[in-house]
Amino acid sequence: MPVNILFAAHAERWETYENPLNTALSNAGVQANLSTDIAPFEVDYIVYAPNSDVQDFTPFTRAKAVLNLWAGVEDVVGNTTLRIPLARMVDGGLTQGMVEWVTGHVLRHHLNTDLQVLNQDGIWRKHIPPLACDRPVAILGLGVLGQACAKALAGLGFDVSGWSRSPKDVPDITCLNGDDGLQQALKRAGIIVLLLPFTPQTENIINAGALSLMPKGAVIINPGRGQLIADEALLNALDQGQIGHATLDVFRQEPLPPEHPFWAHDKVTVTPHIASETRAKTAAEVIAENVRRGEAGEPFLHLVDRDLGY
Amino acid sequence: MPVNILFAAHAERWETYENPLNTALSNAGVQANLSTDIAPFEVDYIVYAPNSDVQDFTPFTRAKAVLNLWAGVEDVVGNTTLRIPLARMVDGGLTQGMVEWVTGHVLRHHLNTDLQVLNQDGIWRKHIPPLACDRPVAILGLGVLGQACAKALAGLGFDVSGWSRSPKDVPDITCLNGDDGLQQALKRAGIIVLLLPFTPQTENIINAGALSLMPKGAVIINPGRGQLIADEALLNALDQGQIGHATLDVFRQEPLPPEHPFWAHDKVTVTPHIASETRAKTAAEVIAENVRRGEAGEPFLHLVDRDLGY
Repeated sequence: MPVNILFAAHAERWETYENPLNTALSNAGVQANLSTDIAPFEVDYIVYAPNSDVQDFTPFTRAKAVLNLWAGVEDVVGNTTLRIPLARMVDGGLTQGMVEWVTGHVLRHHLNTDLQVLNQDGIWRKHIPPLACDRPVAILGLGVLGQACAKALAGLGFDVSGWSRSPKDVPDITCLNGDDGLQQALKRAGIIVLLLPFTPQTENIINAGALSLMPKGAVIINPGRGQLIADEALLNALDQGQIGHATLDVFRQEPLPPEHPFWAHDKVTVTPHIASETRAKTAAEVIAENVRRGEAGEPFLHLVDRDLGY
Repeated sequence: MPVNILFAAHAERWETYENPLNTALSNAGVQANLSTDIAPFEVDYIVYAPNSDVQDFTPFTRAKAVLNLWAGVEDVVGNTTLRIPLARMVDGGLTQGMVEWVTGHVLRHHLNTDLQVLNQDGIWRKHIPPLACDRPVAILGLGVLGQACAKALAGLGFDVSGWSRSPKDVPDITCLNGDDGLQQALKRAGIIVLLLPFTPQTENIINAGALSLMPKGAVIINPGRGQLIADEALLNALDQGQIGHATLDVFRQEPLPPEHPFWAHDKVTVTPHIASETRAKTAAEVIAENVRRGEAGEPFLHLVDRDLGY
């Protein structure tokens, strides 16, 4: 008897995922009926985008797990109708894409390539940056994505520190934790990268106080979540020269409205939520593996801790 | 008796190098008299910038070696008055700076960060690049700099091939050589990085024929030597869309004259010869080590082969 897997996401996702998911399920040895239309009481697994039409999980009486299509779960973790296991997406392709985006933008600010990209005016502006070993970079958040980015930047020679709520140990990285550790990380960060999950504890973690601790002219790169930053405080710090530049990929409202002051600010680069894109092929393999585990009675991968919120 | 070391370079270099060189010589155990003014027949070593006033080496009757301050030797290697060993600069700081510049610009083109840097106009342009593993990068030139850049790019996940005149073997890199190898490298390069020395054999190696072999829309990054590229052929290829973009750090004439068409071309990024900057501290250590070797009767490091020209 095939396993019934409901694909609950917008139609354009179905076009992207139908073939990769069927291939991955077949490769995992799962005989599956994958569809966007299955009677709720017959659904065994839900492949899920939090912005899909499915918001009430009550009718899914026999479902064994909700398998999120992307890494952020803040729009589903508080859903009180969800009483079965919830797995985040931890996609190797998404992680690699994030490493490339973060490394590219850290190097962009480190080398100040904008100086040339924006000024092709015939003036020979010789600007020699320090070497990476003299450029302190702080990564806030040492989950899968933060650790991968920290490792890539350390590999290129950057002086990398990382901060997480609870103590962690990552080779070649100065690991900090707790409130004191956060202050230390902020105080030494020439470039700071935000890769924290969005939780009540991390909302507005980059507020006026945090911004004032950073070295004058520091750069903020946010591929994490828009809610990590207090927008008004950041705009003030940019206007006062306390923060040199902000490259922001995520926002409280997306797409970022054309009238938002971030667009017009010459010290802000807006990018359209492209840093962490799930890649269908590798993501499908993660989902198929979790279905296989569910059917074999093995523990699911990447389960969300409902109390922590990630 | 101290070793007499003539510092033959422009005055601003002396300001940068005097202290680091004296420190490095002392650390190497060399008792030295380092000066910009020593009678030629008393000079033991010449620390040399090819654009210095010293162009006739005949009066330096007891000098044991000319120690070049930078990597390129094309302006001294043909000097017929030079009959003593000539050493190139192979500076760890220069190599690291080159790796950072090349990696930064490869990622800039790979991610197309210019799309956002140049267009902060309120339009949410979602553009997801392929992963680095699906982006073929070719490095022409597998000397110290080329190998270091190839290794860094492969470490980030790029599909890297490298070409050199004679066969080389570099881990994790597809190594090509000879004329056939050059054609192969050009045919598959989505992004090509030029790190060849300037010799009669490499002049205009990127000519109309070479450009026509590259995939349509390929990107050229040149931190090597301006003479590697036939400028007119490149401008034609950019105008026809055969080449998507060129980021050029080196030119036949530097500073690049304001009226040169590269400045005004919207598919060219001019950078002011900043990719390969010698760093005083690490360069001074290389020079001091070569003086120590000369005094101890040991072979010099980084000797130039006059026949090959590098």
